[in-house]
Amino acid sequence: MSDEAFSLRPIGRVHSPWTQGTGTPVQPPSALGITGTVDIFPEFIPGLADLAGFERIWLLFWCHRAKAAAMRVLPYRDTQMRGLFATRAPARPNPIGMSAVRLLGIDGGIITVGELDLLDGTPLIDVKPYVADYDAYPQARRGWLEDATVTDGPMRADHRFER
Amino acid sequence: MSDEAFSLRPIGRVHSPWTQGTGTPVQPPSALGITGTVDIFPEFIPGLADLAGFERIWLLFWCHRAKAAAMRVLPYRDTQMRGLFATRAPARPNPIGMSAVRLLGIDGGIITVGELDLLDGTPLIDVKPYVADYDAYPQARRGWLEDATVTDGPMRADHRFER
Repeated sequence: MSDEAFSLRPIGRVHSPWTQGTGTPVQPPSALGITGTVDIFPEFIPGLADLAGFERIWLLFWCHRAKAAAMRVLPYRDTQMRGLFATRAPARPNPIGMSAVRLLGIDGGIITVGELDLLDGTPLIDVKPYVADYDAYPQARRGWLEDATVTDGPMRADHRFER
Repeated sequence: MSDEAFSLRPIGRVHSPWTQGTGTPVQPPSALGITGTVDIFPEFIPGLADLAGFERIWLLFWCHRAKAAAMRVLPYRDTQMRGLFATRAPARPNPIGMSAVRLLGIDGGIITVGELDLLDGTPLIDVKPYVADYDAYPQARRGWLEDATVTDGPMRADHRFER
């Protein structure tokens, strides 16, 4: 590990119906119909200008309830251990998650979002517009997920990555 | 701004042909044919297991050469100022970038990638598999980019976000 370190400060906080890991949807397609809000701290509100026209936004967040990282994990969508970086497990060396949620509205510093798969109280690190030109590769081959044993339908989390 | 802070440590480093901001491709579709490597630090190499089958990977990185954030910026693809969070400009409160690059090969801790739009020496924060199920929304409405005045063809950066 390098000696270099960088410091992050939250720019806002997520408010969602999910108060514990168990039962929280895994990724936005498992959270259809679930809405919540993101409160952006005052100094950053001017940066939300021009965002309203995007259908989706990336939320980058700190996985504040994730346990320490292990280099091999049992992902939700399979029954065998996989390398951590081949999964989206929240327990990572730098526990930053990203979710492409649906943008429903912006009122001052409050962003209303749909398909929200984040825990209540999650610290927000960044917001970026979802831009299909460089974010959407619908045909991209999906590695072990092509043969995964657990792939169908909405998925809810359990305690496995939570501290 | 909250008093809360989180600490990041690089998990690896990017090696690319791009040594300064000016001339560096803006996003992977502007970097067709450009290859480079990502060196993962030894303790994290076991986490790369099972990654080889994915066509693309997300690189999350620290924009180490970005200047301080401003809440309004002139994006590359337009001729008017836009709210920072409606752009992918690297100069952000938490300067974390993400690029869905093409995965060409993995040899030990060295990942060879294509469509590489990152500066040489960029600290790597995370690697995640690109999973179309929750990353690809090809029809997502693109806000101000729908009417942007500068949208065609590959794009190269200049000094505007660099310190």
